[in-house]
Amino acid sequence: MPTDPVVLLHAWEQEPAVDHHCHPLRRWPFQLTALELRAAFTEAIDRRIPQEHVLQTAGYRAALRRLGDALGCEPTEAAILDLRNRAEPAEFANRILQRTNTGLLLLDYGFSGGDGFSPHEHARVVRVPQREIVRLETVAERLVAGTSDPREWLAAVRGALRSAVQAGAVGVKTICAYRADLRLRPVDTDQLGVAFTMLRHKAERQEPIRVTGAALCHALLFEAAAECRELRVPLQVHCGFGDPDEDLAEASPLGLRPLLQDKQYAGLRLALLHCYPYHREAAYLCAVYPDVYMDLSLAIPMAGDDGAQALKEALGLCPFSKLLYATDAARYPEVYLVAAAAHREALVIALGELFDPATALDAGRQVLAANAKRLYRLDG
Amino acid sequence: MPTDPVVLLHAWEQEPAVDHHCHPLRRWPFQLTALELRAAFTEAIDRRIPQEHVLQTAGYRAALRRLGDALGCEPTEAAILDLRNRAEPAEFANRILQRTNTGLLLLDYGFSGGDGFSPHEHARVVRVPQREIVRLETVAERLVAGTSDPREWLAAVRGALRSAVQAGAVGVKTICAYRADLRLRPVDTDQLGVAFTMLRHKAERQEPIRVTGAALCHALLFEAAAECRELRVPLQVHCGFGDPDEDLAEASPLGLRPLLQDKQYAGLRLALLHCYPYHREAAYLCAVYPDVYMDLSLAIPMAGDDGAQALKEALGLCPFSKLLYATDAARYPEVYLVAAAAHREALVIALGELFDPATALDAGRQVLAANAKRLYRLDG
Amino acid sequence: MPTDPVVLLHAWEQEPAVDHHCHPLRRWPFQLTALELRAAFTEAIDRRIPQEHVLQTAGYRAALRRLGDALGCEPTEAAILDLRNRAEPAEFANRILQRTNTGLLLLDYGFSGGDGFSPHEHARVVRVPQREIVRLETVAERLVAGTSDPREWLAAVRGALRSAVQAGAVGVKTICAYRADLRLRPVDTDQLGVAFTMLRHKAERQEPIRVTGAALCHALLFEAAAECRELRVPLQVHCGFGDPDEDLAEASPLGLRPLLQDKQYAGLRLALLHCYPYHREAAYLCAVYPDVYMDLSLAIPMAGDDGAQALKEALGLCPFSKLLYATDAARYPEVYLVAAAAHREALVIALGELFDPATALDAGRQVLAANAKRLYRLDG
Repeated sequence: MPTDPVVLLHAWEQEPAVDHHCHPLRRWPFQLTALELRAAFTEAIDRRIPQEHVLQTAGYRAALRRLGDALGCEPTEAAILDLRNRAEPAEFANRILQRTNTGLLLLDYGFSGGDGFSPHEHARVVRVPQREIVRLETVAERLVAGTSDPREWLAAVRGALRSAVQAGAVGVKTICAYRADLRLRPVDTDQLGVAFTMLRHKAERQEPIRVTGAALCHALLFEAAAECRELRVPLQVHCGFGDPDEDLAEASPLGLRPLLQDKQYAGLRLALLHCYPYHREAAYLCAVYPDVYMDLSLAIPMAGDDGAQALKEALGLCPFSKLLYATDAARYPEVYLVAAAAHREALVIALGELFDPATALDAGRQVLAANAKRLYRLDG
Repeated sequence: MPTDPVVLLHAWEQEPAVDHHCHPLRRWPFQLTALELRAAFTEAIDRRIPQEHVLQTAGYRAALRRLGDALGCEPTEAAILDLRNRAEPAEFANRILQRTNTGLLLLDYGFSGGDGFSPHEHARVVRVPQREIVRLETVAERLVAGTSDPREWLAAVRGALRSAVQAGAVGVKTICAYRADLRLRPVDTDQLGVAFTMLRHKAERQEPIRVTGAALCHALLFEAAAECRELRVPLQVHCGFGDPDEDLAEASPLGLRPLLQDKQYAGLRLALLHCYPYHREAAYLCAVYPDVYMDLSLAIPMAGDDGAQALKEALGLCPFSKLLYATDAARYPEVYLVAAAAHREALVIALGELFDPATALDAGRQVLAANAKRLYRLDG
Repeated sequence: MPTDPVVLLHAWEQEPAVDHHCHPLRRWPFQLTALELRAAFTEAIDRRIPQEHVLQTAGYRAALRRLGDALGCEPTEAAILDLRNRAEPAEFANRILQRTNTGLLLLDYGFSGGDGFSPHEHARVVRVPQREIVRLETVAERLVAGTSDPREWLAAVRGALRSAVQAGAVGVKTICAYRADLRLRPVDTDQLGVAFTMLRHKAERQEPIRVTGAALCHALLFEAAAECRELRVPLQVHCGFGDPDEDLAEASPLGLRPLLQDKQYAGLRLALLHCYPYHREAAYLCAVYPDVYMDLSLAIPMAGDDGAQALKEALGLCPFSKLLYATDAARYPEVYLVAAAAHREALVIALGELFDPATALDAGRQVLAANAKRLYRLDG
């Protein structure tokens, strides 16, 4: 009864996908090490995880298998690294990206550390059309030094988001789950004042600025939500698992309820990123709020087969018109390839089991491209 | 190894089911629209969900398929609506309900809005035996005007529950999760006094009364629990997902722990309704507390295949002597039919995989009728 | 594509398993009753659950089937009990334990009530090598009488843990989830003082001492964590479901975050026990923290097929180098047998589906023995 996977995959190839959430490539040339490759397939910060445990995950084993298939070599780190490190970097990257069958990358530049391509470079070296997603917290940190109180700061942040969108950004992203938590509550203006003053002092001493804590981060999130609503661009919210900087217990999308129930945010479109293991909760939000969308990136491919299982669970309540495709890939073309292949395969499994062939075909097209085009107004 | 579905379904048909949680039909005649049909298969309040997204859910697609099968028409909204809107309403409703193979409906009249049949009418027009479940919050709202302080009010509520049961109601239902939350904590009598005074003022000004907030709703729930224990009738508790009036983050049945651990409620029987996505948690409660029961209505049929998956997960810890069958259907006979068919199919899948044929057969009979008969003392 | 179960099971038999978490047998001779057998397969305290509901669980049905297979009798309580009650107890116990193919038992003696074998007796009558896990709260309760303030008490507890490890214990176990909760927060020294004084008074009146509440239990847990780190032994933490003394809502392993993020505990190895239904959360912790390990005992075998499903879900994020094998069995050899068989079967299903045959084989060996040997330094 499940639809033939080959038929679905082939049909879906006719229209390139929109990868609505990913990150820039690392600036080449460089020689990729096994440890770096492994580190790209874990959210761990501690290097002992790639050293001792990543090879023992279902996700990484599948990644090596997919890479071996795609590159035409043994599915081993040695063979894959040897092949890629001898290749011409730009040719290799573009060849690999081409295999992901992506028509548009929506890029968040807030993550790449110091050695990623700049937006200008990335657009030049990567032959896939690209648009930018502006990261809220990065913008906000840059603006502390030039403002003297929270009100001024928040206004400057809104202005900067507006400028970014006018300059072509198609959405805003928040990592509030990393910097504070997602249990949104009304902003305490006293605490906000104190927290901002401390940030200001750091700025004056030219120390690095890091926006953290509920007072600052929730205030920022509420302002960004209001601004995104006015600008009519979606707000991407990191939900669910990520690296251990975040307390997963505080990262359920259900905590976003104030944004969903408060009439002042009516019309704001939210894209819930990752979601796992809160994907059934995220699916519920998609089912009852017209402007909520979700993806299962990161769990696909990192959680191995449980990523596909989570996709099936999410498609219980989540309409397929609300599900988005993303790789959350960064730095190495290999990661885009693996995530893309795993995501398409998970869609084949989930949609092929849940729907008749014609519906599965249509649903996949929506998830892979049409939903994102509508959400981000990419055709307009 | 799974038991033949046809064998199970056929055997289960010999004894009609007890639908332990459902709502009355809409008063006919009326012409059903596609939007109304879709709205019956989502918990969304915003009309954009049925307008734009319900057709894109696995649950609604399956619903159309089941309706097409049952009515002998194309599985499309147009064909289904055409057929039903040309039919004689009473004949149509009873014919469809008969196909659900239900022997008894336990009806909650608190939900139907203004256009549902009254209990008296419903008993007359629907040819399935019926009993009533009295909704706690509706009773309580009615009694505010006639009482002068919380103690008097709570006593009046208990008296009204007693009268309702004496008049034939077989259980009490609470929607505390909608009006407050399910994280039960000791009642703060000061807050209760303040909240009740505000309600009283509304009553005096003849404004609509709505019991909300933890002070009022938890006090009510504790009193209802004590009364149900004395009356020896079950207390149905809405848990897990529902419409967005409710904060899903606060709707886990684990929050009912005070009712389960406090000796003064010993013997109180609880029926946890819906439960999804907290069904593993609900199953745990069923596994360790002798008087806790659960169902997976609402998720079956709304969560599509994930409703059946949730049933399998719940049957991990939940004894099949604790699982109940319900449609949570309301307003349109079509909803009863779809929910009943989906629920029976989910039972076939779950029980057929978990047990040998004889046990699966017996387990299904318990879930479909025997457990509810015992819990609600329907034979006594 | 799944690997042949027979091949996997046979290969895994070559190297006996390490059961890293179990409890001692009941002192024989005794005649086992059906109610006692059932009670061993539920976490319920109320006897009505074994009386009325355990027979209706998938887990117990499977247990009877496995016991019938192993003993060569009908899979009924009567046949199983008849056979075992006529056998010579020591011969029976050792014969049954031998079938579990266990090379080492790590025993927690804190649970067996009054009628379990003492460590000395157990080592003599059971012909499987054994090591001890020392239970924190039991040690702590014993030391209240001899100390005069919290500081002295906590120091005495650390001293006792050190002595236990020097005497051969290979780890420490905490049941903080039962006695308080796992939402760890900084210890309030005032509350700790008050709580300890109350304990002291009980000790002086020679009343039974029970360490409960966050002030005492979290303080103990932090001290034990520091001591385990110094002693280089793992700290086992009961997480997830257990008997209803525990509030499951407060038993997620995510609450252990302070132990994982605070640099002063760097290097502390944690073994998360049971975890269900928080196994995806536990798997996440295993995926990002190098020193976190987990098992799914208790869910396997009690949650029936959902135990195997949970194992597959956990193996999404959890490296197979972090997963441990345990029965959590106690009192009756039958429980060890059933848990061992169910656990191996669950591993066959999960690993066989997730990995190629060679990897599945290797992964199973790691889970069954090698991971525990490394974690508990059993070869050193």
